[in-house]
Amino acid sequence: MLLIGERINGMFKDIGKAIRQRDPKPIQEWAVKQTKFGAHYLDVNTGPAIDDKVSAMKWLVNTIQEVTETPLCLDSTDYNAIEAGLELCQRPAMVNSVHADRDKIERVFPMAKHYGVKLIGLTMDKKGVPKDADDRTALAMEIVAAADEFGFPMEELYIDPLILPVNVAQEHAIEVLKTIRNVKLLANPAPKTVLGLSNVSQKALDRPLIDRTYLIMAMASGLDAAICNVGDEELVDAVATSRILLNQDVYADSYLKVFKAGREEA
Amino acid sequence: MLLIGERINGMFKDIGKAIRQRDPKPIQEWAVKQTKFGAHYLDVNTGPAIDDKVSAMKWLVNTIQEVTETPLCLDSTDYNAIEAGLELCQRPAMVNSVHADRDKIERVFPMAKHYGVKLIGLTMDKKGVPKDADDRTALAMEIVAAADEFGFPMEELYIDPLILPVNVAQEHAIEVLKTIRNVKLLANPAPKTVLGLSNVSQKALDRPLIDRTYLIMAMASGLDAAICNVGDEELVDAVATSRILLNQDVYADSYLKVFKAGREEA
Repeated sequence: MLLIGERINGMFKDIGKAIRQRDPKPIQEWAVKQTKFGAHYLDVNTGPAIDDKVSAMKWLVNTIQEVTETPLCLDSTDYNAIEAGLELCQRPAMVNSVHADRDKIERVFPMAKHYGVKLIGLTMDKKGVPKDADDRTALAMEIVAAADEFGFPMEELYIDPLILPVNVAQEHAIEVLKTIRNVKLLANPAPKTVLGLSNVSQKALDRPLIDRTYLIMAMASGLDAAICNVGDEELVDAVATSRILLNQDVYADSYLKVFKAGREEA
Repeated sequence: MLLIGERINGMFKDIGKAIRQRDPKPIQEWAVKQTKFGAHYLDVNTGPAIDDKVSAMKWLVNTIQEVTETPLCLDSTDYNAIEAGLELCQRPAMVNSVHADRDKIERVFPMAKHYGVKLIGLTMDKKGVPKDADDRTALAMEIVAAADEFGFPMEELYIDPLILPVNVAQEHAIEVLKTIRNVKLLANPAPKTVLGLSNVSQKALDRPLIDRTYLIMAMASGLDAAICNVGDEELVDAVATSRILLNQDVYADSYLKVFKAGREEA
């Protein structure tokens, strides 16, 4: 289970302000903190409100790499910003994301292949996010076919079936679980799957409870990675316990401690 | 989701002692307490150490029915004890359980049909509990075929794929999840599914964490009922949240309170 720290995102007030003022302190604090919490990757997103995303992304990548060796997941709708960031990455990165649209596929796959990165593909196109698992799976298939076409390694492709907030789009959560199971059948080796977990609880009252409950369900459906709050102890306990129950780690009475020790060394 | 309170079982020291001494107090306290916690049924098991199970079961049924109207789930390997208990039940009960052996099927199905009860069928036979989902499903099919043969209503049949303790039989947990999904395909209408949840965490260190994590996974796989610790608040929160995420209850910010209010009135 790949844990991708969600916190360096301009949508968070402290990060948005830090980016605008080019203040490295909050950025570097979250980079170090999430690394200590065991993040395998750090998501890096300028947020939508920044005008010059290329310059902001370059500054973010350099600023983070000054304090940590944790690899980065460059997250932007501006592919020039992603490419500028990739130029600076000192370790194999992740790109978040490509949509199932031909123009985006043609722009992103060659770039992802060139830089040897992992790539997140979203099950959406110009028409938006589909309602059900079948239509999500069809869009995933477009992205899987593109990986074949461009010679992109399937094991490095992460399909994100796009979970929506349960308080306004409740019928989607179960469709996303079905899509995770479907995606595993699209190719051999199968592509991997990822979720932007916190979306499920947006504006809900008890967000951590909803997040960890859904993450357990998604892991039981075959989820490989999550962009999430890696500092949420109960979420991490849920991940460790799910790994035991899915026979991915060997049970020992101390399994929680073992899992967290792994985090602190990472 | 049917919640069956596990606590009136001679395996618990206080209950075993109360049965031997015919002391109604601990029995009635747990009957009332579990009802307040929202149990839809109360499991009633004399435990293995009681010699005269018929007399013990009759006393338990009468003792419990003095203080609550919650229906009972008569749980014994002694079918004469179950039948003696069913004679006394004032409300439609549940029988726990029949195995996939011909002699047991012929003894239990006619009895279950006669008394109009729900019936739990275990995916085991004289050879024991199978290792994988396919063999568990084959035994479930024997029980489903028996329901057809004896004219027992499929919606009243609960298949229990028998979760084993994760600390000693770790590979079983994922097979049980697969079996839950398989069972739904065996007939139309599908039989229901149930787990003796606490088994998964036997002698493990953090039992409630393992129980609720596994229950969420099982609910996402289609579980209909659980024999469990209905007094575990976090377990109940997990059930309520799973029902929201699986679109079984409508989301409201107050969904936890609403779910628990339902419990206290029940």
